[in-house]
Parts: sequence; structure tokens; C-alpha cells
Amino acid sequence: MGKEKLILITNDDGIDAKGIKALAEAMAPLGRIVVIAPKEPQSGMSQAITVKHPLRVKKINLNGYDQYAINGTPTDCVKLGFNQILDQKPDLLVSGINHGSNSSTSIMYSGTLGAALEGCLNGIPSIGFSLISFDADADFSAAITFSRRIAAMVLENGLPMHIGLNVNIPYISEKEIKGIRVCRQTMGFWQEEFEHRIDPAGKDYYWLTGQFYNHEPNAEDTDEWALEHNYVAIVPIRTDMTCYSTLELIKNWNF
Amino acid sequence: MGKEKLILITNDDGIDAKGIKALAEAMAPLGRIVVIAPKEPQSGMSQAITVKHPLRVKKINLNGYDQYAINGTPTDCVKLGFNQILDQKPDLLVSGINHGSNSSTSIMYSGTLGAALEGCLNGIPSIGFSLISFDADADFSAAITFSRRIAAMVLENGLPMHIGLNVNIPYISEKEIKGIRVCRQTMGFWQEEFEHRIDPAGKDYYWLTGQFYNHEPNAEDTDEWALEHNYVAIVPIRTDMTCYSTLELIKNWNF
Repeated sequence: MGKEKLILITNDDGIDAKGIKALAEAMAPLGRIVVIAPKEPQSGMSQAITVKHPLRVKKINLNGYDQYAINGTPTDCVKLGFNQILDQKPDLLVSGINHGSNSSTSIMYSGTLGAALEGCLNGIPSIGFSLISFDADADFSAAITFSRRIAAMVLENGLPMHIGLNVNIPYISEKEIKGIRVCRQTMGFWQEEFEHRIDPAGKDYYWLTGQFYNHEPNAEDTDEWALEHNYVAIVPIRTDMTCYSTLELIKNWNF
Repeated sequence: MGKEKLILITNDDGIDAKGIKALAEAMAPLGRIVVIAPKEPQSGMSQAITVKHPLRVKKINLNGYDQYAINGTPTDCVKLGFNQILDQKPDLLVSGINHGSNSSTSIMYSGTLGAALEGCLNGIPSIGFSLISFDADADFSAAITFSRRIAAMVLENGLPMHIGLNVNIPYISEKEIKGIRVCRQTMGFWQEEFEHRIDPAGKDYYWLTGQFYNHEPNAEDTDEWALEHNYVAIVPIRTDMTCYSTLELIKNWNF
């Protein structure tokens, strides 16, 4: 037996969410777990960092493992964990289990995945887990099984430097899940995104809402296809945003 | 002459920043400009979206062009622009000119680039511009020249679907700038990121700070190298986060 692994757990739904408790339960058999998570829900925070106000860390002793609540974003939690709270680099960072999908281009807005990308930048194998149900009281039992299995594989095999995994889990029973598919990110976007209302003073305001539009619903190698067909979808994600084909293309422009 | 081009301008330093006025000045000769920008500074907001509170739009008539201030993130501004404010799709989205660098992995945290990536997802050629000076009263004259030249090239040639540009401009005079280099994103990260203080009540708090660490300071094809050598750096960026080499690698894992 090697040294016990250190696993950092965070999320974007906040430290009181059912999903992060499920993730702690999933990871507990794999090593020593430490939870560092936002005090308040931080959905849609992407990889945002807090520059306007100072951050505070509150240690909570609960459930038999170390937990820290922070008044910031998921990425703040990861940064504070690496720089101030943990006494060693974790072997694995896991974020989630998110209440709701982070498949396709939703990854761009996701605080869950923002935290995982922050782990990647720091050279830590990192995984974001999301369950395809926004229910605050969702049943995470199948998600626990699959997140544990995938995390164990990553602890065993590692991941290439600066690369993470975006894992989405369909909201069906474990028996109904057909297996795990390694996929590419579906190209799609959100449309008709606002509900326009008038307040009691007669002034306009807008709520973000909208529908996801899939550019490639029939592409069998995508995460959306896998989820629709009852597979767990794993998309390997990178922190190098460079588009190399465009780089070659525009080198020839006459600036 | 074709139809006049529509150019959407946004930023993350807020609608009152000197940088966005400079960008409007740079773009005005290229088409009809509309400014839709955050009411308050939104640095470090990445591609965050506002889900917790409703958004309000305030129209401002100033400087001879349409301006809208929004109580949200840069990405909210782009979404509201596309969905509620503009009567047609813009031909170009430009974001900035940011007060401070967004080179290397800083792109991940940048609200300026978050807005540009939102444009890309919506199929609009999009560019983030940043000047390597955090000075609120910085001299944008060279940045105006180069941002106009680069935007004109994009209007003329277009960009591949869902691809944007991350442009960083050194803070030196126009004469000292050696030219424009098309680069890849430098791999690096921020370290020692917090200043720990004690408040008057004896409680700990943390301010985000830190230093950028460049993993590859001698790589001549990177944006950091270009900026250090007095070039304007253009990195083509993509919204597909998939790491295809890792996809092939982990397909063979025995999940």
C-alpha cells in the first residue's frame, strides 16, 4: 500500500448542497478527504475570482472530515486550498456533484468546472462531476458509484499535465446506465435567453433563462449524445485555449 | 461599398473606464458602434452569468453613439445585447480595451475574454483587447491604432466559426512596437496568491494577490515572449475545450 491519497473536494452549489455530501461519500474510501467549498451557492460563476472583497475561511467540524466554508467563488476555494489551507498538494481535485448538467458548452459558465480548471492549471488531476437533475433533493446513488469508479481510475493512471475531466451523469437508476463513454464536447449554445418582466414601478427587468440548442444532435461522439442514450459522458478538457489551426491560418494575414 | 457593419463593444472594467472609450474611438471608423457594458467593474469575472438577481438595462445617450449600462457581468451584457437590445446580429464583437494584461492563462479569469468567448459561442467573430497597464488613466493611443487594424482585418477576412482572438498590447509607444505576432497561449499559473491579514476584531482574512509564473519563458511562439519583446500578441482561441489527445488516451481505460 502506498501513502494515503489526499483528495480536495469543492463545488459551486455551496457547502450545504446534497451533491457535495454525495461526492464526499463517493471519495471517502479512496483517501483522506478535505472539503473546501463556497459558503453560498455560486452557480454560473465560471472560473471567476474575487478581487473586490477579502476572503474569509470558516472551519467546520462535521461528518468526520475537515470542511472549510469560504465567502467566495469555487475558484477562490481551490486557490485558498492550495495556498493557505492544505499542508500538501492534493493528489486529486474533485468538484461537484453538481445539481444539473454541465455538458456541451455549459462548461464555459460552470463554477463546478471553473474549480476543476483551476486545479488543472496548478498541475493537479481534476474532475468536475454533474448529475442531470436540478432537484436539490436528487438521488445521487448512481452518481456516487460512477464518480468513485472514475476518480479511482484517475488516481491509478493520472492524467496528462493541465488536463481535466468533465463528467456528466444521466439521472436514471444505476441499472439503467449503459456504461461510460469518453466523448468530445458538443457544440451548441443557449438561445432566447431572457424573460422580460415589468416591476411594480413600471420598470423593465430581465431574468436569465433560455433553451439549449444542440448544433449536432446526431453526432455519436459527443457528450450530449451519450447522455441522451443513457451513458455517463466523460469529456477530457484542456486549459490551453489556443486554436492551432486558426493560428496557422491567420499567420498569413497581412497585418 | 457594402452595408455598414454593426460592431458590439463591451468590457469588464465597466462602462465608465477609459479603455472602453478608447475602443469606441478605435472602432468608430469601421462601422456603426453600440456599447453594451457593465455598470460596475467586473474584473476577474471570467464567463460568469447572473442567475441570482434580475438584470436591468440603462440607456445612455453620450458621445454620439448608443450605450447601455447593465448591472451584470460582461457575458450578461453580450447575451442581453444579442437577445434584447440589438435589432440584428453584429458583424463583430470587441471587448476591452482591458486595463491590464490578459495574456497566458489569465484568459481563464478574464471578464474581457469571457465576453469574447460568449460572442464566439453565438457565431460572432469576437476579439478581446488588453493593454499591459493597470493604470486607470493609461495612454491608449498605440492600443487604438493596433485594435483598429486588427478589427479591420477580422471584418475583412472573418474568423472560423466559434473562434476568437485574444489580443494583448505592450504598454510602449507606437514607434517602439515591433509589429504583430500570432502566438499560442503561454502555459503558466499564478502562485503565492494571498495576502493574509488580521482584522481589528482579531479575525483572519485574505486578499487575492500573487505572481505569475511562466512555465516556458524561452518559448518564442508564445504570447508572453511576444509581449516581452515589444510585439502585439494575438492568440486565436476556441470554445471547444475538448483535449483530443487525452480523449484517445483514456478511451482505452477499463472503466
